[in-house]
This record gives sequence, C-alpha cells and structure tokens, in this order.
Amino acid sequence: MAQKPSIPKGTRDFSPSEMARRNYIFDTIKSVFRLYGFKQIETPAMENLSTLMGKYGEEGDKLLFKILNSGDFMKSVKEEDLLSNNLYRLTNQLCEKGLRYDLTVPFARYVVQNRAQLQMPFKRYQIQPVWRADRPQKGRYREFYQCDADVVGSDSLWNEIELLSMIDMVFSLLKVRVAIKVNNRKILTGIAEMIGEADKIVDITVAIDKIDKIGIENVNAELKEKGLDDAALQKLRPLLEMCGSNEDKLKILEETLSSSETGKKGIEELRTVMEGFDSLGHNCEAEIDVSLARGLNYYTGTIIEVKALDVQIGSITGGGRYDNLTGVFGMPGLSGVGISFGADRIYDVLNQLELYPSSVSSSVDVLFVNFGEKESMAAARIIKALREEGISAELYPDEAKMKKQMGYADSQSIPYVAIIGESELEEGIVNLKDMANGTQEKLTPEQLIVKLKNLRQ
Amino acid sequence: MAQKPSIPKGTRDFSPSEMARRNYIFDTIKSVFRLYGFKQIETPAMENLSTLMGKYGEEGDKLLFKILNSGDFMKSVKEEDLLSNNLYRLTNQLCEKGLRYDLTVPFARYVVQNRAQLQMPFKRYQIQPVWRADRPQKGRYREFYQCDADVVGSDSLWNEIELLSMIDMVFSLLKVRVAIKVNNRKILTGIAEMIGEADKIVDITVAIDKIDKIGIENVNAELKEKGLDDAALQKLRPLLEMCGSNEDKLKILEETLSSSETGKKGIEELRTVMEGFDSLGHNCEAEIDVSLARGLNYYTGTIIEVKALDVQIGSITGGGRYDNLTGVFGMPGLSGVGISFGADRIYDVLNQLELYPSSVSSSVDVLFVNFGEKESMAAARIIKALREEGISAELYPDEAKMKKQMGYADSQSIPYVAIIGESELEEGIVNLKDMANGTQEKLTPEQLIVKLKNLRQ
Repeated sequence: MAQKPSIPKGTRDFSPSEMARRNYIFDTIKSVFRLYGFKQIETPAMENLSTLMGKYGEEGDKLLFKILNSGDFMKSVKEEDLLSNNLYRLTNQLCEKGLRYDLTVPFARYVVQNRAQLQMPFKRYQIQPVWRADRPQKGRYREFYQCDADVVGSDSLWNEIELLSMIDMVFSLLKVRVAIKVNNRKILTGIAEMIGEADKIVDITVAIDKIDKIGIENVNAELKEKGLDDAALQKLRPLLEMCGSNEDKLKILEETLSSSETGKKGIEELRTVMEGFDSLGHNCEAEIDVSLARGLNYYTGTIIEVKALDVQIGSITGGGRYDNLTGVFGMPGLSGVGISFGADRIYDVLNQLELYPSSVSSSVDVLFVNFGEKESMAAARIIKALREEGISAELYPDEAKMKKQMGYADSQSIPYVAIIGESELEEGIVNLKDMANGTQEKLTPEQLIVKLKNLRQ
Repeated sequence: MAQKPSIPKGTRDFSPSEMARRNYIFDTIKSVFRLYGFKQIETPAMENLSTLMGKYGEEGDKLLFKILNSGDFMKSVKEEDLLSNNLYRLTNQLCEKGLRYDLTVPFARYVVQNRAQLQMPFKRYQIQPVWRADRPQKGRYREFYQCDADVVGSDSLWNEIELLSMIDMVFSLLKVRVAIKVNNRKILTGIAEMIGEADKIVDITVAIDKIDKIGIENVNAELKEKGLDDAALQKLRPLLEMCGSNEDKLKILEETLSSSETGKKGIEELRTVMEGFDSLGHNCEAEIDVSLARGLNYYTGTIIEVKALDVQIGSITGGGRYDNLTGVFGMPGLSGVGISFGADRIYDVLNQLELYPSSVSSSVDVLFVNFGEKESMAAARIIKALREEGISAELYPDEAKMKKQMGYADSQSIPYVAIIGESELEEGIVNLKDMANGTQEKLTPEQLIVKLKNLRQ
C-alpha cells in the first residue's frame, strides 16, 4: 500500500490554479446560457446500459465504461457464454449500468421520462463530465466535461439564430478569435441528388474540405477514384470553386441546386439563419461552409462548427438540428437544435494563448501574519469583518517564522499581507504590505476594509 | 427499446427548479469556502481500486462501484476463482477501477501524489458527487454530493475555530437554525482511562447520548450490563449528569478527568476552540457534547457535528481533526482538520422549511411574444441589448397563438412578458406586462432596460 499512488490513465486531477481557470470558462458559458433563457438540469453519472447501448454505434458500445453489478455479480453469468468467451453477452450479464458517454442520450431519456411535466419548447443546458474508454492521447481524455445547450419542441429557425448569437457572446467574452462555420444537411442532400450519387455524400464533403490544401484538380482526381463520373464532376465544379461572401455562396448554391427541392429548402433555411444572425450584429465571423458534414446521420438541418483561429486544435464547439432525438425511446417526432461547447479544448486554447484575465486566481485577497495568540485574536476580528464585506482573508494558522509565513503568501500569490505585531496591536492599526511592490502602509481596520473593498471592484 | 426509459435506483435527475435550489446551496457554501481562503480541487470520478480498497472497512469495499475493465475483461480471470466463485478475487481480476466513495481518500491520494508542489498548510475544498452501492432508502442515495473543506499541514487550533466560524456563516446565510456540537477525541480517551475501561468507550458514549431520553438510572443499568462495575459508574456519574453552559461543562470535565493527561489535553484544546469561537461572536449555538463520538477510529482531536433544529434528519455537517490522513499512502505524520457539508441533507432541510429566497428561480427575467418575422426582429434587437446589460431574456421562438405563449410564460414563472405587435412596432415601444398583477405599461426600449435592470438589484 505504501507505493506511490496514481490515477487511472486518461483522467486528471485539477489543482487550485487549474480549477480557477476552468471555473472562469464554465462560469462564462453558464452566464450566457442563463441570459438566453436556458435552464440547467443534471442527470446521474450512471445510466442503465439499456439506455446507453446501441446509441453510439458498435464502436461506441465498446467505449462505454460499464459498472460491475453489486453483490453476487456472477449469479446471472451463463456457463455457455463463459466457455465461448462471448464478451458482449458476458458484459450484459455482469453489468446493468454504465457511465454516461455524452449528454445527448441522457437528455433524450430525461425528456421522454418527464414528457408529461415538460413545457415545450424546453430549453435546457447541462454541464457535466462524460466518460469514454478511448485510448488516451494528447487532448483526449477518458473523463472530460461537456457543456450542452438544446432547445426541443420548436422548429423555428430563431433557435438557430439564438445559438449562433450565444456562440458569439461566449467567445467574445472569453476573447478567443473563432470562425463559426455553418451548413445545412439538406444542402448536402441536394448536392447528392443533383449529381445522382446519394451514397457518395461523405466522399464529396471530405473532398470539398481539402480543396484549399490540394487544389481542385487533385480533388477531382480523388472523386473520380471514388466513382464519380465526368458529368457529376462538371455539375459539382461551381460548388468546389465557390468562394466570396456568404451572399455570393448562397447565390451559387441557388443556381447549382435549383433542381433539388430539398436543396432549395436547405438554402432557404441557411439564408434565414445567416441573415438573422447578421442583422443582429456580432463579433465573430460566421461563414457558410458546405464541406461541414459533422454528424451526418444525426443532423437534419442546420450544422454548426466553431474553430479557433489562433490555435490548431480542431473544432471547439459544434451542433445542429436533429429531427428525432427521442424516437429511440419511443417518443417520435420531437425536433430539436443544440450546441455543445468543448470545454476541455476551450481550456487548452485559453491556456495556450494565456487569455485569462488577471482576476482569475485561486488566492485570497489578504493574509494576516500570525504573531501569537493576542495578535491573532485581533487579526481574527478584522478578518471576520472583511469576510462579511465579501473580502476573502485568512490568518496564517501557526505562529511560524516571519520568513515562512511570507513565503506562504508568495507561493499562493496573495496580493496583500497584513501585519499586526505588538506595536500595531497597541496602536490599533494594521500594517498592510503590497506584495507586488513591497510598499507598506498603516491603516485603521476601517481604512483596511475600504481599501480592499475598492480593490475588488 | 421503446419501453419507457428509467434511471438506476438510488440515482436522481435534477430538474431546472431543483437545480436552481441546489445551486443556491452550493454557491453559498462555495462563497464561504472562498472567503476563508480554501481553494478548490477536483479529482477524477474513477480511482484505481488499489487506492480505494481497504480504506472503508470490509463493508465499504462491498459498497464500492467497480468499473469493468475495457477490452477483453476476461483475460485475467483465473479459472480456479471462477470455479470457486471467489467474488473478491474475481472483482480484482475483472476490475482495476472504481468510482470514488468519498472525497477524503481521493484528497489524501492527491496530497501524496502532489506533495512536492504543495505549500503547507494546504487548504482545499472539493464539491463533487460520490457513489455508494448502499441499499437506497428515503434520504439515502447511490449518487450524492459531498462538500468538503480541509486544512492539512497545520496543528494550530485556529483551524478548528475557522471551521466552526465557517459553519456558522454557511447556516446563517442559508437561514437554517442549527446546533453545533463539539467534542474532543482525547476527552473520550480520558474518560476511558479514568474508569479503566478503554474498550468500553463506544458503549459509554452511546449511553451518554441516551440520557435525555431514558434517564440516568436506565443508562447506568445499560452500562452495568455492558460490564462496567459500580466504581466505574460512580466515577462516570458527574459526566452523565453534566449540564449547563460550556464553561460549566469544561469545569466538570476538568475535575473529573484530572487524573488523565490525555483527557486534560483534550479539555485544554476544547477550551481554546470554544473560547476562540465565542470571542469572535457567532449566530449559531455551539455546545460541548461529550457523547459525540463520530469517526471514533479516525478522529484524534476536535470532533464537530451539526444538527438542524427544526427538522429531524440527523447530522447535516460533520468533521474533526485526524492525525494520519496520508499514512496509508506512505506519507505519515500529516495532521489535518476538516468538515463535510452534507449537501443533499441540507437540500432536504431547505425544501422542508421552504427557506429559499424568492430570487432563487430558474426563469428568465422577460419573455418577448412572437408576432411574426418583422416584430420578432425588433424584439431580438432589444433582447440583445438586455442581455448585454446582464438581463436574461428570450423570444418565444414560434409564431404561436398568444394564449400558448402566455401559457409558456406562466408555466416558467417568467415575471414579465414584453409585447411588440404591429402598433408597438410602429410607435417604437414595448408593452410590458407584469405577470404578477396583470398590469401593463408602455416603455421605450431604453426605459425597459432601465426598469428591468433596477428590478434585478
């Protein structure tokens, strides 16, 4: 037992300074969610495996963390499955519960379970950790937070505009420069219809995405290899060469996809969303990107993805509209639209760019030096008054050497140290040392409170 | 799959209104932790089983939720253990990880793992869920939150005074009437030494605890049954009859335990803590209670327990000093003192007594009715300005019937509804309806912002 303890791979401890930074991000996102009228829910870490299995594909089933049944977990295990080492069946005999893999499935389960009480449209947000038995690597963890906001029960495109506006506000507040990319699933369907290759939609979006890197001729060669004929490539060309403003792109799309009813509907939706967002004004750039195809089998309308401009890290936020969130739980026809902020990646971005305001700190406002019982009691009284005014303060608990106590203040980045020694006690004052520049000033307790209060504002 | 989904027994979903109430409690506790200079850490939900096993007794080991190993979880399973159905050995072959059972062991593990970076005294707080495979019953859950604050690396009794003061501040802010009970483990040792029955200490504290209910003669009869002789009962009598002020109790203890060095040390510590706490002033009553024996094998000095006065629910906060938090991980001699707020029980108390301030609500400040595209765009602009001023606002996303939209506002307890119809649009004003009394007033957008901002303060 005396070996040095460790934590499971892919998991992390968060130190006080890391927590201060993470709380800054979470608090910012939460404050925006609230301003937009989203309401928080929480769901249990453990869900029944029947809720989770089959929702994330075969690969996802394997990446679920399963909880061994309590008590005699062997009692339901069948000998034949033991003998044949049928892991899938054994898992279901050994385990009834698993850790949540995302926040979407638990949300869908919550909506179905509480359908009678929920008033639609239901706008919920949820910020909780999720667990995946992925192979850990840089930036990929087995426990990480998701921050989701969804509206269900409303088809209105105002919801999309609100979500874009929320993204704009979050990243403006965090001072992260981002590009918001927007697409519509129906446009992708339209493209596939137009060239008569519905099953090639993934290849096409992957190719479009590469055009900046490898050029149009290489993209065409690649698509030819995937089985597109010359006529299809000819039809696709204007989309591959598409550039310019969002309005320019919408016009090209309208011309190119005029034969597809679904495509036209997608363009109309995209136009409404982009124009609505534009006319309200925003800080972050939003651009149409028809190569955006995330969650192809899942999204049915608007698709949103956010990339940081100053750090290479992939998507830091994403979302879109889906038409059948709850169908798998026996409640069909409920449409929704949502976004998920990738808190851990946003944390990495802010760390790399050092975008934290100086107020983000885990330290207290002032440390009182401990010179013994009498002096400490006087300090404790002032500390009590400071706390009642919302100023965080602490007394060094032990009567240690001055150097040790100052070293503590230094190591904790405490900005002020208050000294009440024998002479200060007699005079009824406090000697306040500014740790940044070493200056000291003598203050009455009342003056001290006012000074520290003003500094906080 | 179409059967109605559910959640594992002993777990809970939290709805928006429940989350608003829980956040009020957590935010209050957090704000006090910060004022006192405690710093937040977080540890992973999953710990290595080697970290958890053997720390909570044999019963605790059984109550740990274990995570089935990923991949071929059968590969380490030994046939002989399968054949003999040796559940303990099979568990360790099937599982390497478990869910944290409390916050204390992960904290001890964290301290040992990060000892080189930590500056002592280290004051940490931690608010996270824990999981126990207990039989669920009223008020006992398989997933619940703990809120712990601990100071390690300081023997000073100022830490105890600070913790008592923190308890006082938390429950004063939450407006829960409580009794803070304080004891010292060394006094219990002293009592056992005095009557020469060190192994009867549990029986004695249980008996002392019953005296109000069953009377001194019945307590004596019970103790006699447990094997105490008349001489011991005679010595114990003053402690059983002890009442009055804390000072009265300290005097009786000093007289009774004068022969025990350990007892005298305990009384001295208790006196320092109670006098320190008293001289700083407090709202909640703190009383010496020598029947307090929680965590008898764990605590070595001060023992603290908090009971709600107006709800029968058992202890809602507890803690004390321990001398060897990290010894089990190979780092002996680290003393600490801490308290744990029972968030879920505090939540039950506040619910029963309806102690939530009216500002605790999950609703937005104002809903804008949707009368169609043009009107909604005007509304959206004002909503944007409101949000920039910190006022939460939402547009009903669909152009639904007025009755439906007002019904939504009602169901969400939204205090104000803003109406911009055709005529308001022409006039450039907003018709603001106060949902509490039905009154309406016409305001310019600027007036609206000022009015709602003032209401928030």
